[in-house]
Amino acid sequence: MRATTIHGPQDIRVEQVPDAAVQDPGDAVVQVELACICGSDLWAYRGVSKRAPGQRIGHEFVGRVVDVGPDVASLRPGDRVIAPFVWSDGTCAYCVQGLPTSCRSGGFWGSGTSDGGQGEAVRVPFADGTLVRVPEEADDALLPALLALSDVMGTGHHAAVSAGAAPGATVAVVGDGAVGLCGVLAARRLGAERIISLGRHEDRGKVARLFGATDQVTERGEEAVEKVRELTGGLGAPAVLECVGTEQSWATAIGLVRDGGRIGYVGVPHQAPNLPTGKLFGRNIGIAGGLAPVRTYLPELLADVLAGRLDPSPVFDRTVPLDEVADGYRAMDDRSALKVVVTP
Amino acid sequence: MRATTIHGPQDIRVEQVPDAAVQDPGDAVVQVELACICGSDLWAYRGVSKRAPGQRIGHEFVGRVVDVGPDVASLRPGDRVIAPFVWSDGTCAYCVQGLPTSCRSGGFWGSGTSDGGQGEAVRVPFADGTLVRVPEEADDALLPALLALSDVMGTGHHAAVSAGAAPGATVAVVGDGAVGLCGVLAARRLGAERIISLGRHEDRGKVARLFGATDQVTERGEEAVEKVRELTGGLGAPAVLECVGTEQSWATAIGLVRDGGRIGYVGVPHQAPNLPTGKLFGRNIGIAGGLAPVRTYLPELLADVLAGRLDPSPVFDRTVPLDEVADGYRAMDDRSALKVVVTP
Repeated sequence: MRATTIHGPQDIRVEQVPDAAVQDPGDAVVQVELACICGSDLWAYRGVSKRAPGQRIGHEFVGRVVDVGPDVASLRPGDRVIAPFVWSDGTCAYCVQGLPTSCRSGGFWGSGTSDGGQGEAVRVPFADGTLVRVPEEADDALLPALLALSDVMGTGHHAAVSAGAAPGATVAVVGDGAVGLCGVLAARRLGAERIISLGRHEDRGKVARLFGATDQVTERGEEAVEKVRELTGGLGAPAVLECVGTEQSWATAIGLVRDGGRIGYVGVPHQAPNLPTGKLFGRNIGIAGGLAPVRTYLPELLADVLAGRLDPSPVFDRTVPLDEVADGYRAMDDRSALKVVVTP
Repeated sequence: MRATTIHGPQDIRVEQVPDAAVQDPGDAVVQVELACICGSDLWAYRGVSKRAPGQRIGHEFVGRVVDVGPDVASLRPGDRVIAPFVWSDGTCAYCVQGLPTSCRSGGFWGSGTSDGGQGEAVRVPFADGTLVRVPEEADDALLPALLALSDVMGTGHHAAVSAGAAPGATVAVVGDGAVGLCGVLAARRLGAERIISLGRHEDRGKVARLFGATDQVTERGEEAVEKVRELTGGLGAPAVLECVGTEQSWATAIGLVRDGGRIGYVGVPHQAPNLPTGKLFGRNIGIAGGLAPVRTYLPELLADVLAGRLDPSPVFDRTVPLDEVADGYRAMDDRSALKVVVTP
């Protein structure tokens, strides 16, 4: 089969690799219908996150089960499924409490020798614990929206839940990437009344408004903080979604959060900023979030997509066939595309 | 009147100062019945926190109102009152939401030219917003317990609430100072089932057990983390109270918190440690807490003290008259005393 591999910075290839196949009794093999490229894939693309030459890449996909091992109980060939961005056994203490990202048997697509999502098919460990079945009657037109549930929508939702977005809340969202935009959508879904989106890109601003942003702040840094404070009676936003993960974005989030408020953080800390407790303490600022337990959120988000109440698909603004996946990376890297769908 | 002043590291004096008097219409003057020395006063005593020579010190006291300004509506001379460790106007947006520590008109006893708690009397700004009246029928024997509500008990409670201590919870408390011990007591009061207290001092361990600690860990650092993990099936404690505020105590708290858990932080970050987001992200660790809004918690904690359901007074293990307050500082600095009461 063909799959995307990464051989070094800016060196994305599509290569012939061994066919995905059942290896363990709990495995399933999923034929990918749609995959996509994540902002976090760009860290590998830029050489910031190291990868072994030839390693697979991609961690978001929807597809159809084509084979299952003898222990798989809940799925059968032909089922359409969504894969969250980590696999998990579904039975350990962490999985049971709803934190599959801490599953001791879990792992990331493309890590080590595992299959990545940007390929023709994927071997899925712990298929019963990992995959979420899509009802057969779901319209094919929903596929992009379902694909977004594999990571960005669940991650934006995690930020919103963690920040305390709730009916009537005032929320600020730092970052207008696909995750930040999904954070806006999630905050609206949770009933937030005022949603302040921070970001400079006009095209992304349009998606933010479509998703429910009531205010947009195009300033950066200290000016953005001042602007949000102006918009909130000088107090700041009680719920802030940190959807970037850099030192600057954290400084902005801390600057504009209201005293006693909470920052829901989901921006992958590739540059691993350190939080100044001295700036949090006197103001009673809390933080919550982290790597989104997407598997836990999938059933409720899926139900809303199927019912027509939730559509994160506008975060995708380009589609490339698998053979042109490298163009997709380039487009996201130079920001000419927001998020790119890959069709095997 | 006489009051405690600080002139430099290890230089605590009792001096004649101008009598406390009403200056603003909302002021009250409180004759101090009992005051005490706080672990955070030691930072000034050790020269880590700078003070102007001759500045007042002390921020915990109970006493009787002896004079009120014309705007004071809820108090009159003769009323016994508890003062939280900051004053606050009681009317601003932060006070109304229950965060008086962020009150724009608020301040700390002993800051600038204000009176400190370790003296014969204190001018209290915004007396209606700041002070909490103790019912006349309260027994004098309760005074030490009431004094503890001015800071340590409310601070321990803030750590416990912020960490998510609740009925049935497993809680770990980092720090066996007076705040950590009150954190144990607060966790028990909130219904925690298992309370693991970390600390090396045998005498403090006795108070921890009295306050409800079910397990005690005398190891430090990595060994303490391993021990707590042993006690919790390898998973760690879902609720951790950080009651120290140093880089080491934070590292311990992060090490022993269960993935998806929350650290309630109240240790004053004098050395202002920076939190490594890279170590929090993948494990979904949250933090909440900060400077305790003691004024907000006072009514419920006071009710429990008066009803005999709550007694934090065992954190006090020595009493000195005001003239010997310097001995009290020395005793707390060399750890021969846990927390010292001062009687004017």
